[in-house]
Amino acid sequence: MRIRRADAVDTAGIAAIIIPTIRQGTTYALDADMSEADALAYWMGPDKETFVAEEDGVILGTYFIRPNQAGGGRHVCNCGYMTSAAATGRGIARSMCAHSLEYARARGYRAMQFNFVISTNERAVRLWQSLGFQIVGRLPLAFQHPTAGDVDAFVMHQHL
Amino acid sequence: MRIRRADAVDTAGIAAIIIPTIRQGTTYALDADMSEADALAYWMGPDKETFVAEEDGVILGTYFIRPNQAGGGRHVCNCGYMTSAAATGRGIARSMCAHSLEYARARGYRAMQFNFVISTNERAVRLWQSLGFQIVGRLPLAFQHPTAGDVDAFVMHQHL
Repeated sequence: MRIRRADAVDTAGIAAIIIPTIRQGTTYALDADMSEADALAYWMGPDKETFVAEEDGVILGTYFIRPNQAGGGRHVCNCGYMTSAAATGRGIARSMCAHSLEYARARGYRAMQFNFVISTNERAVRLWQSLGFQIVGRLPLAFQHPTAGDVDAFVMHQHL
Repeated sequence: MRIRRADAVDTAGIAAIIIPTIRQGTTYALDADMSEADALAYWMGPDKETFVAEEDGVILGTYFIRPNQAGGGRHVCNCGYMTSAAATGRGIARSMCAHSLEYARARGYRAMQFNFVISTNERAVRLWQSLGFQIVGRLPLAFQHPTAGDVDAFVMHQHL
């Protein structure tokens, strides 16, 4: 598996991952019915650098990295990761996160922050913790989960 | 003093407040050198509802309210407030925040969250606390203050 910068030819492969995740509406605070064009504009927007994890020409995961804030907050980055449902459990999110941490250090970022890790996404919370992130905030009942009701979300952070 | 919805004729009055605050770069994570057009597009963007506090035809403060997240996070709002430097200490930020809390309840929001309250802005932190907000997260060294160095920022929250 190779992690590399995304370009325009990857659009369909990226859409095949992010659209089902967005439609499911359980792990990202994005409108579940957003159009594919809007979803791609969000994931690959000019404020972001977007990567794909590819194996034998198939895109198995994708992530973006961007400054989390402008101005005096530009030294802290933010990332989002999504993995193909067909490839879950193979360590792709872990590989992408490790890649993003290394990339962030190389780009001069001094910390990475996740703004909205939904507490019911326990697998992700544990994964981020195992990669060095700490919970620095708890947003009470901040996410209306489609089946679990209102649940907390976490702010997670690590210095680089 | 009257707080009302902003419209296009208020652009100059709003710019007169937000541009000096942005240029100073001590209370908002916005690029200090952003253009006036970009600043107004940010403050009055289509994702936001923007208000002004006006007295005798002069705009003394302005605030926006917007959903803090999309999708399952749309029930939580976010606001930003700025007061004219000439009118500090007159309770304008307090009045605007009280107005926004009432407006948010009427609009059906169930919580209000501030994502990035810079810890050196002690006056604001105390004001928000006095209006019912709690610190639910501490972002370590998240803001490069132009004179104080790297300082923490707070996530503040209240249920409505």
